[in-house]
Amino acid sequence: MGGLAIPRAAETVPAPAIPARGGEDALTALVELVGDDLDACNRSIVARMDSPVALIPQLAAHIVAAGGKRLRPLLTLSSARLCGYPGADGGARHIHLAACVEFIHTATLLHDDVVDESRLRRGLASANAIFGNKASVLVGDFLFARAFQLMVEDGSLVVLSILSRAAATIAEGEVLQLQTQNDLSTTEDQYLEVVQGKTAALFAAACEVGAVVAGRPAHEREALASFGMNLGIAFQLVDDALDYGADQAILGKTVGDDFREGKVTLPVLTAYQTGDEPERAFWRRAIEAGTQDDGDLDHALALMAERGAIGATLERAQGFARAAREALSVFPDSTERRILGDVADFTVSRVR
Amino acid sequence: MGGLAIPRAAETVPAPAIPARGGEDALTALVELVGDDLDACNRSIVARMDSPVALIPQLAAHIVAAGGKRLRPLLTLSSARLCGYPGADGGARHIHLAACVEFIHTATLLHDDVVDESRLRRGLASANAIFGNKASVLVGDFLFARAFQLMVEDGSLVVLSILSRAAATIAEGEVLQLQTQNDLSTTEDQYLEVVQGKTAALFAAACEVGAVVAGRPAHEREALASFGMNLGIAFQLVDDALDYGADQAILGKTVGDDFREGKVTLPVLTAYQTGDEPERAFWRRAIEAGTQDDGDLDHALALMAERGAIGATLERAQGFARAAREALSVFPDSTERRILGDVADFTVSRVR
Repeated sequence: MGGLAIPRAAETVPAPAIPARGGEDALTALVELVGDDLDACNRSIVARMDSPVALIPQLAAHIVAAGGKRLRPLLTLSSARLCGYPGADGGARHIHLAACVEFIHTATLLHDDVVDESRLRRGLASANAIFGNKASVLVGDFLFARAFQLMVEDGSLVVLSILSRAAATIAEGEVLQLQTQNDLSTTEDQYLEVVQGKTAALFAAACEVGAVVAGRPAHEREALASFGMNLGIAFQLVDDALDYGADQAILGKTVGDDFREGKVTLPVLTAYQTGDEPERAFWRRAIEAGTQDDGDLDHALALMAERGAIGATLERAQGFARAAREALSVFPDSTERRILGDVADFTVSRVR
Repeated sequence: MGGLAIPRAAETVPAPAIPARGGEDALTALVELVGDDLDACNRSIVARMDSPVALIPQLAAHIVAAGGKRLRPLLTLSSARLCGYPGADGGARHIHLAACVEFIHTATLLHDDVVDESRLRRGLASANAIFGNKASVLVGDFLFARAFQLMVEDGSLVVLSILSRAAATIAEGEVLQLQTQNDLSTTEDQYLEVVQGKTAALFAAACEVGAVVAGRPAHEREALASFGMNLGIAFQLVDDALDYGADQAILGKTVGDDFREGKVTLPVLTAYQTGDEPERAFWRRAIEAGTQDDGDLDHALALMAERGAIGATLERAQGFARAAREALSVFPDSTERRILGDVADFTVSRVR
């Protein structure tokens, strides 16, 4: 999966050293690299989420226009640039397809927040908290359909194939996550399958589309898909670590959400598998039985610190980030390649 | 919309006479007409809703395989036949696209039942009642994505355009319904817009796709789309009437569901608009304020009988059914045309 021999979680306790070249600068550099394209993409997003049914643009604006890093459309835009698109004739396909990617992402966010009963999203009230679950489900459906309409306008069956497969894989990952919820017998492989589905599949598709619009050969498409897949896994592993480590202001969501929902993420699996019997009994009560008292989250955090569960998760993430960077080696050196490689490091270093 | 001058609801009290040639036989004849194709379509549905994530085929089987009239795929199959597809070379595109149509329909049913908090579907426990809202939302997303994967395999951008537009229109109709819920100032035009979106758009698309696979010219595509649109409106109007008229065994859902949910359908609008002030006060309390007591549904039924609201709704439905039949007049007389015309009558006569 990662393409690298990554040490098993239980063997690695200290947090890994993060290379200095990553950091916030990588994301800033990415935004600067494709700044005009991103502006055009944002305009396309606002224009195409419109509808005569007023609640649709209202709700969509809340989640689409109100922020977010636009990481997935940035990947489409920069992957296209890496592949030399647009050339001298200045095409705009990458811009509209980046908007499609963001619509699919936004649709899944809306449905996720309903499924998770989340009250916060990026530090603001979630759409379902303001507009209700019903509207969130239906506007998610609208954005999903609208994404396909935009792809049809673009006219590439290859792109449609990549993104429809990604959409199905996302849903499969989410359902698998539901199946493994509250189940501490979940294996790391199953956990990684969930992560590949719910998060990394769209990262991979977003990148691959960049190569497709540029008309690049199969091995470059596959390299970008592999970059996106490994990047997405690293991103989600760090997200799962942050859920037990960051404060609300940085994370934009409540610390311990995963814990309260009984989600079986890698930090929990690591702490459970390396814990002694009293610790395992605690995890079974809190995660499997879902019986949680005041102070349980603090106790969970203490156990994770003791067992090095966060450090081990970040080490796994770093392995995937490294695999992402290596996937780009089929491309000649360029500013685009360097920045995308740095973004892979950034996904791990953002936790510090 | 219907293309006919239909008497306004308030002017027409008695229930319309239904032509004898409609009736159950029309649907039976439709199933017999495309029986082998329908079997193949059912096999395609079962094969393509599969997934390594076990909950997906389990839940999908509950709703897809457990029944339903398959009306929408039947429309695709019979529209293709009407247009002479497949010819001597025996293509199967209509079969796979009929499966796509059913997947889209099933996805919307799953999400509808979550949005409406329904406990019954076709007389059985709804998927959300058995598997939970979360799984229903996510498996709906999966089926929707899978529908687009199947369309991509078919390879027609025209079909993709028709069905992605229909999917967006369905979501818009559902959101508009949410906006008009509990609002007795909803106009009949707004009500018809909801109906066109949430129900008739997919009927229209299902029929139009039949002409597309057959490679028929634009005016035949449009005729079939118009047939489907009018048929779908008639179908939904009858459904809305049945919600106040049929018993649970026939309807497969609970009588009065719409009433309890405060849905502003044509029977309610008619009774409200033609009622005196005490009647209007009743409707405002029950539908707008949503304050309902035991006996309120019976009182609502009595008021509807008094004001002829059900008869007026069925009369409107009959007008759309007639427009549906007339839309087929661009095609030469054939068994297929006759059966589809009879199906239009059947949509109204099924209420008796």
